[in-house]
Amino acid sequence: MTDYKFSPIGYVHSAYKEKFGIPRQPGLVNIPATIEIETAFSNDEAFRELETFSHIWVIFVFHGIEQGSNSKWKNMVRPPRLGGNKRVGVFASRSMFRPNPVGLSVVELESIERKKNKIIINIIGGDLLDQTPVLDIKPYIPYSDSVTSARAGYAVEQPEPKLKVSFSEQATSKITVAEDQYPMIKKIIEQILQLDPRPAYLADKNGNKKSEYAIKLYDYDLIWQVIKEEIIVTDLKKVK
Amino acid sequence: MTDYKFSPIGYVHSAYKEKFGIPRQPGLVNIPATIEIETAFSNDEAFRELETFSHIWVIFVFHGIEQGSNSKWKNMVRPPRLGGNKRVGVFASRSMFRPNPVGLSVVELESIERKKNKIIINIIGGDLLDQTPVLDIKPYIPYSDSVTSARAGYAVEQPEPKLKVSFSEQATSKITVAEDQYPMIKKIIEQILQLDPRPAYLADKNGNKKSEYAIKLYDYDLIWQVIKEEIIVTDLKKVK
Repeated sequence: MTDYKFSPIGYVHSAYKEKFGIPRQPGLVNIPATIEIETAFSNDEAFRELETFSHIWVIFVFHGIEQGSNSKWKNMVRPPRLGGNKRVGVFASRSMFRPNPVGLSVVELESIERKKNKIIINIIGGDLLDQTPVLDIKPYIPYSDSVTSARAGYAVEQPEPKLKVSFSEQATSKITVAEDQYPMIKKIIEQILQLDPRPAYLADKNGNKKSEYAIKLYDYDLIWQVIKEEIIVTDLKKVK
Repeated sequence: MTDYKFSPIGYVHSAYKEKFGIPRQPGLVNIPATIEIETAFSNDEAFRELETFSHIWVIFVFHGIEQGSNSKWKNMVRPPRLGGNKRVGVFASRSMFRPNPVGLSVVELESIERKKNKIIINIIGGDLLDQTPVLDIKPYIPYSDSVTSARAGYAVEQPEPKLKVSFSEQATSKITVAEDQYPMIKKIIEQILQLDPRPAYLADKNGNKKSEYAIKLYDYDLIWQVIKEEIIVTDLKKVK
């Protein structure tokens, strides 16, 4: 078998420091992120006219997965959309654990700017982990990419935001401080949590779900609980 | 820079033996093709539920391009949609000559079958060259992949089929013979040619376009001319 070797053209910078909490599909949330293009590819000409497109495809590597071994992927996966109970084939899923760990997301293109010798692409869109290696950027071309007649199998309906999100006094005051550096952080927290990121399979021996959760967001641990199907943010702890 | 290594999970079999003639975007034509999955990945479980989706993403390698060198890509390309005159950035194009030669096409999923120890995926869709290495297959999920609000820059409108295609007596009788092996061949020829595959830049020193063209299709050379903006198929020559 022939191998193909690819080098990242850039890397994502986003609020997401870990997989837990990332919306299961892009487009569900409006969270800003950037793609920092490597110097070798940061030629203005290479991006000319890209800003005339409202959306772009980001083809990326699911990183943090052991390379060069297939030990991590299985023929069947349990998509979170199915409550973690039903299994489907890996190629019928968008799971990150796949033979070639290549991901595909459409994101909104906000702007393109230059910082010193690097091009920075500002995007709005959902599911890219911080430090994700980007292999390619392509324009989203509606007449070929938007298949309005397409039927989806088990993921037909967009999940509606459903949970109410409240903040403890402690969380509120810490968020106020964090907003100096991350003005969008409260909006980001609300968008992530109302989608109910609790993994279906995370239950103790008695079948009870955990009651307290932590999500790494920027350089914080976001601490939250679920009480009577309402999400309460209890703390935002600085890490490091 | 980190390199990532990927192995194809399968290979495309299609009528297209060369780049010339391939529609510039998938979805413009209804041409059958297959993806033959490598034995190592031909486990029925890995494709379970995929058939519940009407469309799939094929992530592939633009092959036949020298690997391991960047000699073939340039910062600016001339998209055929712009008549080959205007240049745009490579990342604002779907050109095959790009830093990481990865392609992305949505195709219609017709059926999945098994032939001995291999899974064969029957697809309908436009632009995949024969022997294209496939890196990944993902379900097309309309609510995230179909961005109906997206605006495109220079490629807003789907080009309409525009040229009339006629057949000489010689071509007609040879096509009749070829139909024994390739029942769809006439329909395929019509679909490809009515999109006017003449490359804009193919002109002689005096600016006149060539008058006779050949497209490799299956194991044939399809010979055609353009007379008064009408396409006349003059021959279908068996090669080899």
